[in-house]
Amino acid sequence: MAYCLQCGHAAERKIPEGDHNLRLVCPNCDYIHYENPKVICGALVVHEDKVLLCRRAIEPRYGYWTLPAGFMEIGETVAEGAARETIEEAAATAVEPHLYCIYDIPDIGQIYMLYLTTLQEGKYGVGPESLECALFTEAEIPWDDLAFEAVRRTLRHYFADRQQHSDHSTFAIHQEYIGKDKSIKRY
Amino acid sequence: MAYCLQCGHAAERKIPEGDHNLRLVCPNCDYIHYENPKVICGALVVHEDKVLLCRRAIEPRYGYWTLPAGFMEIGETVAEGAARETIEEAAATAVEPHLYCIYDIPDIGQIYMLYLTTLQEGKYGVGPESLECALFTEAEIPWDDLAFEAVRRTLRHYFADRQQHSDHSTFAIHQEYIGKDKSIKRY
Repeated sequence: MAYCLQCGHAAERKIPEGDHNLRLVCPNCDYIHYENPKVICGALVVHEDKVLLCRRAIEPRYGYWTLPAGFMEIGETVAEGAARETIEEAAATAVEPHLYCIYDIPDIGQIYMLYLTTLQEGKYGVGPESLECALFTEAEIPWDDLAFEAVRRTLRHYFADRQQHSDHSTFAIHQEYIGKDKSIKRY
Repeated sequence: MAYCLQCGHAAERKIPEGDHNLRLVCPNCDYIHYENPKVICGALVVHEDKVLLCRRAIEPRYGYWTLPAGFMEIGETVAEGAARETIEEAAATAVEPHLYCIYDIPDIGQIYMLYLTTLQEGKYGVGPESLECALFTEAEIPWDDLAFEAVRRTLRHYFADRQQHSDHSTFAIHQEYIGKDKSIKRY
């Protein structure tokens, strides 16, 4: 059961006139509640030959390692959101942002937009949503304990691209689809 | 006044514990209603030396020319959304999509993600949200009658890029911020 945001009356799921999708519609005041995909903004934060990871202190995937990332907020750009998440999760300042990985995850209504960034002065701490934060070389990455497929792919792309180019700002953008089995191509 | 989606009780705007932003919170069932930025997916559809524009049959900007674009839906990729909007607004099939322009518009909580595409078989019609659709050469673009700043910029980028490169698939991605005065840089 769901209720109308605008008047509090019990709402119905139906396809409004001229629309193609089921929406929450209020039979009392005609308000239509639209739900749309959400953007996950985040950062791959690099310091020398290492990358910054955070071990999650929240569900889902409590205890697993992730990049600083989270839901983008109204009023910020995607890059500002990525910098904010890095402060919140790792008490670190991510600078020189370059858009790097975009992942469509239509099954859960999410689009990841991750920036390749540099860790200012090599300094970081531990934010309230993290159990710990740390810098990892490629050999040290805890591949079996990563929180999300988007994190795994971004790290794979980064270490592969780094072998080809020395300047981060020239890395091409990776745009991919992540399906339920983590591998199906959709484009 | 707003009401709880989950239980219909009158909701309050407040900052939940551990959060930094005002949210709609229910004092009865504790449900938090998050509002996040929305993705506008769309297509610059090219046929020979022309681009496809649609004259809007809906508000806002009724009567002005736009690219096929609209709110991305849950369950689709950004590219699929761009193709869907092209069908809905111009009864046309956009093929060979390449991500081309990304615009942050934080003041209205929107991110545009526009694809450079090709018009299949040069065929198009008029969708229910358009008064008319037409192909325009650069000289014919109705610059003073475009619906949105994102449309104007995308067309400017396209005609400039076309002078440098012949192959659409090699065009670089343009990522920009659009502010209230349409010009301020934020990055």
